[in-house]
Parts: sequence; structure tokens; C-alpha cells
Amino acid sequence: MSLPQTNFKPPFNITRASHLVFTSRDLAKSRDFYTEVIGLKVSDETATTIHLRGVEERAHHSLTLKRTKDEPGCERVGFRVFDEEDLEKAKSHFDRNGIAAKFVNVPFQGRTLHVCDTAGTPLEFCARMKTLPRVQTQTHTHKGAGALRMDHYQVLVPDVAAAAKFYTELGFRVSDYICAGGDRIIGIFLYRKNNPHDMVFLTRSGPRFHHFGYIVHEMHHAVRALDAAGNLGFGENIEHGPGRHGHGHSYYVYLRDPDGHRLELLLPAVQIIDIDDEPMRYDVKPGNTNLWGLPPPRSWFEETSPLIGAKVMAPGTQGDSLTLEKYLFAKGPDAAPVKKRA
Amino acid sequence: MSLPQTNFKPPFNITRASHLVFTSRDLAKSRDFYTEVIGLKVSDETATTIHLRGVEERAHHSLTLKRTKDEPGCERVGFRVFDEEDLEKAKSHFDRNGIAAKFVNVPFQGRTLHVCDTAGTPLEFCARMKTLPRVQTQTHTHKGAGALRMDHYQVLVPDVAAAAKFYTELGFRVSDYICAGGDRIIGIFLYRKNNPHDMVFLTRSGPRFHHFGYIVHEMHHAVRALDAAGNLGFGENIEHGPGRHGHGHSYYVYLRDPDGHRLELLLPAVQIIDIDDEPMRYDVKPGNTNLWGLPPPRSWFEETSPLIGAKVMAPGTQGDSLTLEKYLFAKGPDAAPVKKRA
Amino acid sequence: MSLPQTNFKPPFNITRASHLVFTSRDLAKSRDFYTEVIGLKVSDETATTIHLRGVEERAHHSLTLKRTKDEPGCERVGFRVFDEEDLEKAKSHFDRNGIAAKFVNVPFQGRTLHVCDTAGTPLEFCARMKTLPRVQTQTHTHKGAGALRMDHYQVLVPDVAAAAKFYTELGFRVSDYICAGGDRIIGIFLYRKNNPHDMVFLTRSGPRFHHFGYIVHEMHHAVRALDAAGNLGFGENIEHGPGRHGHGHSYYVYLRDPDGHRLELLLPAVQIIDIDDEPMRYDVKPGNTNLWGLPPPRSWFEETSPLIGAKVMAPGTQGDSLTLEKYLFAKGPDAAPVKKRA
Amino acid sequence: MSLPQTNFKPPFNITRASHLVFTSRDLAKSRDFYTEVIGLKVSDETATTIHLRGVEERAHHSLTLKRTKDEPGCERVGFRVFDEEDLEKAKSHFDRNGIAAKFVNVPFQGRTLHVCDTAGTPLEFCARMKTLPRVQTQTHTHKGAGALRMDHYQVLVPDVAAAAKFYTELGFRVSDYICAGGDRIIGIFLYRKNNPHDMVFLTRSGPRFHHFGYIVHEMHHAVRALDAAGNLGFGENIEHGPGRHGHGHSYYVYLRDPDGHRLELLLPAVQIIDIDDEPMRYDVKPGNTNLWGLPPPRSWFEETSPLIGAKVMAPGTQGDSLTLEKYLFAKGPDAAPVKKRA
Repeated sequence: MSLPQTNFKPPFNITRASHLVFTSRDLAKSRDFYTEVIGLKVSDETATTIHLRGVEERAHHSLTLKRTKDEPGCERVGFRVFDEEDLEKAKSHFDRNGIAAKFVNVPFQGRTLHVCDTAGTPLEFCARMKTLPRVQTQTHTHKGAGALRMDHYQVLVPDVAAAAKFYTELGFRVSDYICAGGDRIIGIFLYRKNNPHDMVFLTRSGPRFHHFGYIVHEMHHAVRALDAAGNLGFGENIEHGPGRHGHGHSYYVYLRDPDGHRLELLLPAVQIIDIDDEPMRYDVKPGNTNLWGLPPPRSWFEETSPLIGAKVMAPGTQGDSLTLEKYLFAKGPDAAPVKKRA
Repeated sequence: MSLPQTNFKPPFNITRASHLVFTSRDLAKSRDFYTEVIGLKVSDETATTIHLRGVEERAHHSLTLKRTKDEPGCERVGFRVFDEEDLEKAKSHFDRNGIAAKFVNVPFQGRTLHVCDTAGTPLEFCARMKTLPRVQTQTHTHKGAGALRMDHYQVLVPDVAAAAKFYTELGFRVSDYICAGGDRIIGIFLYRKNNPHDMVFLTRSGPRFHHFGYIVHEMHHAVRALDAAGNLGFGENIEHGPGRHGHGHSYYVYLRDPDGHRLELLLPAVQIIDIDDEPMRYDVKPGNTNLWGLPPPRSWFEETSPLIGAKVMAPGTQGDSLTLEKYLFAKGPDAAPVKKRA
Repeated sequence: MSLPQTNFKPPFNITRASHLVFTSRDLAKSRDFYTEVIGLKVSDETATTIHLRGVEERAHHSLTLKRTKDEPGCERVGFRVFDEEDLEKAKSHFDRNGIAAKFVNVPFQGRTLHVCDTAGTPLEFCARMKTLPRVQTQTHTHKGAGALRMDHYQVLVPDVAAAAKFYTELGFRVSDYICAGGDRIIGIFLYRKNNPHDMVFLTRSGPRFHHFGYIVHEMHHAVRALDAAGNLGFGENIEHGPGRHGHGHSYYVYLRDPDGHRLELLLPAVQIIDIDDEPMRYDVKPGNTNLWGLPPPRSWFEETSPLIGAKVMAPGTQGDSLTLEKYLFAKGPDAAPVKKRA
Repeated sequence: MSLPQTNFKPPFNITRASHLVFTSRDLAKSRDFYTEVIGLKVSDETATTIHLRGVEERAHHSLTLKRTKDEPGCERVGFRVFDEEDLEKAKSHFDRNGIAAKFVNVPFQGRTLHVCDTAGTPLEFCARMKTLPRVQTQTHTHKGAGALRMDHYQVLVPDVAAAAKFYTELGFRVSDYICAGGDRIIGIFLYRKNNPHDMVFLTRSGPRFHHFGYIVHEMHHAVRALDAAGNLGFGENIEHGPGRHGHGHSYYVYLRDPDGHRLELLLPAVQIIDIDDEPMRYDVKPGNTNLWGLPPPRSWFEETSPLIGAKVMAPGTQGDSLTLEKYLFAKGPDAAPVKKRA
């Protein structure tokens, strides 16, 4: 399996992971979670929809929650293109390649193009969005994590190299990739902005939406979010962490929102810009891959938000990940976690 | 079961939890752990003994490690008394009460009195110790957590009220206590200094030494310790946390040293001084008692350092604690943590 | 001049610096400042009085503001004694020594004793105060610095050794003292609690109240207070810092409240308990005495809160302190700070 | 005066501010300063040259210091272009426009192009540089600020709009600009990378190099740098701060290296990518323009590093900036900062 090569002359200019649309069964509870624990600001809300943004964001929304009575899921995964001309180029590109793409109207956004990637992830592209003042210096109004801005998405797919190829052809570069069992690529980290990242694929049945990441300023902001979670009835929503990823990645903590959608709070990652920055390869080794912190629990590996309308396919070979449960089981004196001891 | 009452006119003046003596099978490895991860300073070392102190400590040592070929354990649990006169009063007090107490010579310490508490914990008291300059402002020389100072001990005993009575008669106050199944007291937090704490008892077979705590200045110091642990081969020594205790207690992380001795890094706790500060009662409730953070793993509940020479007794009734293993088991879809899922 | 010696068998047991009473010309503005910037909690308020406490404090108030139309000042400097019996002992002690002392009623406090120290500082002692729940773990309700607790006072007096003697006879110990021009003592740091400090005297005309200190948890809490000050119209109230004191002391920032009363936000200081902890002597050296940070501006040296009712006396010899103004003047190319340069 | 417009189809692709070349009279002392206080890593050193990089940087150097016996200055201001092809395009562009540009060999760099901007700033462009492993996760090896990466430059020029035009024609965007006396533009912040910034111009005689900025991870890293400065004899090198800039910019502290070259340690700034992000205009208002923190001292306004070989020109109109000296003078009781007061 080979790593897809970046097309440095892409047909149009995608600039960044910018916004998500999720459905929710309880908007009021989600609003509490996102404003009091994560610290997002409400840009607009109605009885059926809430638009939220990070405290640093000038863009009107990076997270849209829509009321549903069905199973909550991810409706759209949004990216920005640089300008309106790029939308036209995008439409032509998809038409040329026989990929269904159509322009739609989305509130608070400029002209918006809907398309699915080759894995089936429902995407949308826009160049413009209503703007609001950044409030990152108004720290006396910040709550919880005071999350700064949307950072990246992680999607599970059966074939990460095939999924990533859609993006590398559109100019995405690979910062890191993970190999297992020799050269089988099981994870790819992709970016357009240089902070990075924008999109991450891991091998599992899919496409399924795994998590999105918001940047927090300093570690104590993540800690304040966890205090808020504990104090406000969301303590069980803390799924994994705090810890520090292996592979040079940042400090993290994962939470589940009231509908089970997973988000990561992470500190600013490294900057990657130079042509010298070749993709870094990491080989899966036995044991905990974190620099520190326990392995993720099984729920982290298995539970996801459905991508609404996408058909889930299973991979040919699936990883046998080290869950926290297996980790503790392997460390423990025997297989029965409830057995009493002296 | 009733909470023992503080004797506010104690026979002698104990001022604080001050120093511990542990045995170690590999002094070089322990030295690495304590200097590079925890950030203690070496005050003195020979082929068989290392004396360590926190960066804020003017006292020569708060942790003494002695080489052993046997099972590593805790040899002495040390407290300071205010002055030499208090040592004489202590000796008289113990003699009067038929408790064996003898003066011994300990390097770098003033006259030192050995005695066991009623639970069997081997204690030592001294009023003086060689002093060395505090180096807390020399932050460019600090490593890992840059641990400031010894804070408290936790000892497991079959009968916490009986064990605590020894201390309350010596002037210790109770900040908090934990009840289960109505009025059965299963945990008691005791203090003499006002930062607090000094000694904590939890109900289990014992006496067994559970952990000692060092204060760190800010949360990022704990994070730097965890980074150091991960980078220097001590990643598996992180046992539990970071998290925040319930009951108004502080942020914590627990690590195991190379011999399995457990220590807690914690942020400064509240100050308790006033007579108004009545002991706070907490009743065990089902579920995770942390403000946030996963429950401790089973090892935290079960594994301890033996108190050298102490005879271990089992309690009449033992708690059925929520371990991380049970917590995950209860959350999971079924009892078999290794079972594959879609 | 010699350092007064601590009486280790004091006539009664003072436990800590606990509360202040100030007058204010604009209660509403002061309330804003203390709740939004410093992060104190309002325990009680009427049209004429506000009682405030730190987020960690169980005691009803550590700061009382009373409305005035006169020049704002400090009405009382409060200390806790351990219990009611100590109040009786205190009264007897002062009576015996011909020092006027009388019991008064103060809202929310137990029996309260008024007395002046030998420098003329109006003090009050009480053993009990109404209690309220500590809210230090409710970080989602904290604002600004989220100040934890009252820590210490600094008072300017003409003769620091004479002023300190009143306190050392009551059991206060000296952590540090500052000498100038040989053995002339110009500053003394006194403590009863072991965190420390409780009372500091510096040589100037006096008695005049210089500042009080509240402990903040971590440096980022001080930074959040400064952001709040800047955003809420109190930016000019930041007088000095952030910086780090010399002499092993902590990080600091000084602010002036709307009436000009000065407070310090500082991080937890070292713990001092042991008999080994002899007073540390520091000799004034030319130049900036901070570990880092600019010298304080002239206002810091000269402006104070009057101690209501106290008669101000000038010292025999006054220090010639390095103000920020002199520091910049000495560094600059010439004496005229407004002169234009290329 | 009008703001120069960005050419969104630039003749070649500059990606970021990447490296500087300074001369130094005392390499050993500078090495100490940059490694112990700022926390840079030495990538290579000889008797006459030191190459340094931030802990996050994969590029071999972001700061080169060359030994000199002359007045220390800035020899080159370096930018990265995306690839080798961009260097060819750059050469053609400059040739076409009659701007002298020549290829040179620089150790550890790919082909490098020397050219001066229209203000006379000596620049160099390269696409490639030797790489070394990033060490940002090896926090146990970090010292002082553990500075992450080079961020931006500030250059003083007589005509900021003219100076900026060179850059906007090469694709730089304007994040903010500062106007005085109506529409006279006196400051322009330019960027290519999206973190931002890369180049800042302020109006003064010039071109003169004012400062460069390194990003630090969290505020406590800046504090550790200040502690290190104070402890290691560089306390007087702290020129200004810590404080928080107005205009939505970040926390900062300015230091002077042993040769007087000025650097800023700053926290990560906002991300700016979208076409919606129109330049923000700020109008100079009387008083301190910081969100908090004292105004900069006169030295900050007046002292610079000479750009070696550049001819300094004076501006038509120069700002009358609020220095710390003027600020204190205006606040003080009279014009004589050394006058004694009671």
C-alpha cells in the first residue's frame, strides 16, 4: 500500500477545516455543554438550530447543531475554499470527474457546494461566511475551555489510502502516517492550513465520524473545562485523557457531547509549512502509544457519529487496537476484573 | 463508630509530616525517577543511601532511600516536633502510656525518637535536621515536576477510627472523613500544619503504606513530570490521573516509583486553621467520586508498600471500591473486555 | 538595632491575618473591581457595607468595605485567635500591659477585641466568624483572579523593630528581615501561620497601610485578572508587575482598588514551620532587588491608605528607594524624559 | 495615504518568516542567553558562528549569530519560498523589475537568493534547509522559555505604506494597520502564513531592525525564561513586559540579547486564513495602548539593530509615542522624577 502523493497544483484552493453540522436530540442540553464546558459562543439560535463559534473565530459558526428526533449524526463536514472563484473551479473539477456536486443555500454562508468524498463523507465547501468580532481577548467572558477555534476532523474509513487520495489530489499534504504489519497504512494525517491538521483517516468500518478537535490556548483551559464538566453534570462525558499523544502530537482530552458526538480539546500543534517537511512514518508498536496517559477505552475505538446518508463498509483487515480494557486486563492478575483480592 | 476528638492541649507539639525512609532494590533507577521525573534534589548520597528533598525544602531530606535486596518497603514514617523539649515530652508521654519508644541516632537529624502508632506504623520524630538553602526560585535548575515539599501520607488500616485516635490525642485535627453504609467511618484526613494535610487513613487490611504526596507549584509542573516520565522510560509508572479529587480536594496524579512505592503529585490544598473549621463529613455514593477523572485502577486499591516490621490485620468489613476495571466493565456492553465488536 | 526575639510561649494564640475593614467612596465601583477583577465572592451586602471573601475561604469575610464620604482609609486590621479563651487571655494581657483594649460587637463575627499595636495600627481579634461553604472547586463560577484567601498585610512604620516587637511577644516569628547601611533593620516579615506571612513592616513615616495580599492559585489566574482589569476599565489600576520578588519570595502583581487601596495578588509562598528556620537576613544592594521585573513606581513607595485614627510619625532615617522613575532616569541618556531623539 | 492591496496571484510563493542572521561581539555570552533563557537549541557551532533553532523547528536554524568586532547588527532577514522553482521565479521577477538579486551559497541552506526590499532591508530567500528532528515533546531537555519557533520581524521604516507595497505585491496580506492623525498609516502587520504574522512595519527613521518574535507554548514558559534571566545575570535584559498588546494581539515580553538585539517572546496568535478577513484598522488613541501592562520604555522606541549596509532615512512625520518615561512623568506629581517626597 503506498501513500498518496500530494498534487501541489490542485484544481482549486481548499484552505482549512472550518465547520460541522451535527444533529442533536436535546438542543438545550447541548447548548449547555458547548457553552459552559467547551466555551463556545452562540452566534445565532432558533428553536431548531444553534450556531456556535470559538472565541477566536471571526467566522459566524464552526459548529451547527440541528434538532432531530432520529439517531443523532453528522450531516456535513465543512471546508473553506479561498474565494468564490474556487467554488466554480471545484464544481468544474467534480463535474469533470463524474462526482455529483451541487450548489445549495446555507444560512450565514456564501454560496455552498455539496459533494461527497470517495469514502462517502458528505462535505460542503464555501468561501464566505458572515463575520462577527473575535472575542479572544475578552477572557472575562470566556467559560470552560474557552475553545479558540475548530481545528480538525477524524473519520474512520475502510481504506485510508483510497480516502486520502481524494484529498491529496486537492492539495492536502500528509504530515504523518501510521503503518501496521509492515507497510499497511492504517492512519493518515492530512492538512492544508499550516498549524496543522485538517483531516485524519483511521482504518475501521466506515465512513463514520470519529471526532473533531478544538484548539485551547493553554493546558489550564482544558483543566477548567474538566472542572466545569464535573461540576455541571457532564463528568461522565469525559471519555479519555488528559494525556499526551505519541508521534509528536499535542496534549489532549476527549469528551462526548450529550448526543455522544466526540470532540477533542487540544493544545496548538506544531507548524508545518516547508517543502522539506516530508511525511513522517510511524510504525505501530505493541503497548500504549501515548507519550503518557492511559490507552483510550473501547468506546473511543468503537463508538462514532453516523455520517448521515453514508453507507458503511467494513475494511479488509482491521486493527486490533489496545483498548484501556485490554490494557488493564493484561496488567491485572487475571481475567476477571471483579474478582476480590486481599 | 464515632470520630475521635482532637485533644487541643496535646502532650507535645507535632508540627508536620516531614520525611520518609523507604528501601529500594535499584538506587540508581530510583535516583533517576526522583530527580528527573519528580524533580527532587539530592542532598547526600552514598553507595547505599540517597537523601532527597523538594526544591522548596530547607530541611536536608524528606525522602531517604536505602538499598535492599529484600522486598522494598517503608521503614519509617517521619514527623517533626517543634523543638527538642517536645521530644522529651513525647518520650514521657509514650512511657506513661506503655508505648515502647526509644531514642536513636539518624544521620543529618537531631535526636530522633522511634515509636509505633497503635495501628503498627513505625514512626520517627525529630525536632531538628541539617539545613540546606531553599532553591525554589532557581527554576532553571528544576526538573520534571520540580516538587516543592513533602505534604502527607496515606496509610491503610483495618480500623481507621482507632488508628486516628492515636493522632487526635496528639493534637491532630480532622479536616474530612468519609462514611459508608450509614455511620461507618472508612476514611479520615488528619492535619497538624494548616496547609493541610499530614496523615490519612483508609480502611483496608493493614497497616500498609499507600502513598505519600509532594506539592507541585502549578498544574503544568505535573504535566512536565508526565512528559519526563513518558520520555525517560517511566510512562508505565503513571498509575492514575491527572484528575481532580472530589470532596473539595486538589488536582492529582499518582505515580509508582521503580520499586512500586506510590506517590501523589498534588497542587496546594486549602488552608485550614480556624476553630470554626469543623470536620466535613462525606458519604460514599455509588459511582466515581472524583470531581473529574476516571476511578483509580485496581492496583491503586490493592497494591501498597509494606511497613517493615508491621503485622498486617484485616478489617471487619471492607469497602467494595469502584475500580477503573469495574467502572469500565459496568459501562461496557458485556463482561468480556477482549470481545471484538463491529 | 537588633531583631526582636520571638516569644514561643505567647500569652494567647493568634493564628493568622484574617480580615480587613476599609472605607470606600464608591461601593458599586469597588464591588465591580473586587468581584470581576480580583474574583472575591460577596457574602453579604447592604447599601452601606459589603462583605467579601476569597473562593477558598469558609470564613464569612476577609474584606469589609464601608461607604464613606471622607478620605478612604483602613479602619481595622484583623487577626484570628484560636478560640474564645484566647480572647480572654488577650484582654488580660493588654490590661496587664496598660494597652487599651475593649470588646465590641461586629456583624458576622464572634466576640471581637479592639486594640492598637505599639505603632498605632488599629487591630481587631476574633476567634469565630460565620461560615459559608468553600467554593474553590466551583471554578466555573470564578472570575478574574479567583483569589483564594487573604494572606498578609504590609504596614509602613517609622521604627520597624519597635513595631515588630509587639508581634514577636505575641508569638510571631520572623521569616526574613532587610538591613540597610550595615545593621539598620528596615524591613521585617512576620508570621504565625506556616504558609507564611501575616504581617510585614517597612520603614517609612507611619503607621500607614501599604497593601494586603490575596493568594491566587496559579500565575494564569493573575493574568486573567489583568485581562479583566484591561477589559473592564481598570487597566490603570495595575500599579506594578507582574514580576518576581527577590529574597526567595513569590510572583506578584500589585493593583490599586478604586479608592486607591493597594492589594497584591501573589502565588503561594514557601512553607515555614521548623525551629531550624532561623530568620534570613538580606542586605539592601544598589539596583533592582527583584529577581525579575522593573522596580516599583514612586507611587508604590509613597502612596498608602491612612489607618483611620492613627497619628503618623516620621522615621529618624528614611531609605532612599530605587523607584521605577529613578531607574529609568539612571538608565536614560539624560535627565529629560520628554526630550526627542533620532 | 492608502493601504497597499494584496496581489493574490503573486509572482512566486513566499511561505513564511524563517530565519535571521545577526552579528555578535560575544558569541559565548549570546549562546548562554539564547540557550538558557530563550531555550533555543544549538544546531551547529564553530569558533565564529552559531546556528540556533526553536524546539519545534525541523529546519536547521532560525537564528544565526556571527562573531564581529564591529557594531553588532542584522545581516540578513530570511524568508522561505515554497520550492526551488519559486526561487527561479523570484529571480526573474526581481530582474524584470530592475531589483538587484543574486544567488549565493549559505551553509545548511539550499540555493539562496539575496535581494533588498524597497526600504533597503537586506533579505534572503531559500526553499530548503537541512532538517533535524523536532524536539518539542522532549520537554525534559527544554530550558528557559523553550521557545518553539521563529514567528515574525518588526522593521522601522520612514514610509510604511511604501515598504509594505513590496510585500503585498508578493502576496502578503494585511491583518491590521494603525492610523494616526486621521488616515496617516503608521503601522502595518503583514503575513503569509496563517498563524500569523511574518513582517511588521512601524514608522520611524529606517530601515532599522526593531525585533523578532519567537512563539512560546504557554505563559509559564515566558515566566520560566524571566526566572532564568534573573538567576543567570540577564535580569537587566528584560526590557518590557510581561503584558498584553491591545488590538487583539497576544501576551508578550521583550528582552534584549547581550548585543542589544531585541526579541519578543509571545504566545500563539490568532489564525487568519479566510478571504473574509479584511484588514482591521486601529486608530491611535491617547494613553497606553496595551490591554494591560505599562507602556514600553523609551529604549524600546528608539534603540534598534542596524541593518548592515542599509542607509537610514528619516520619515516626513514621526509619531510622538507614549513612552514609559512620559507616562510616569504625566502621572507623577511634578516633572522631577528624582525629587524627594515625604
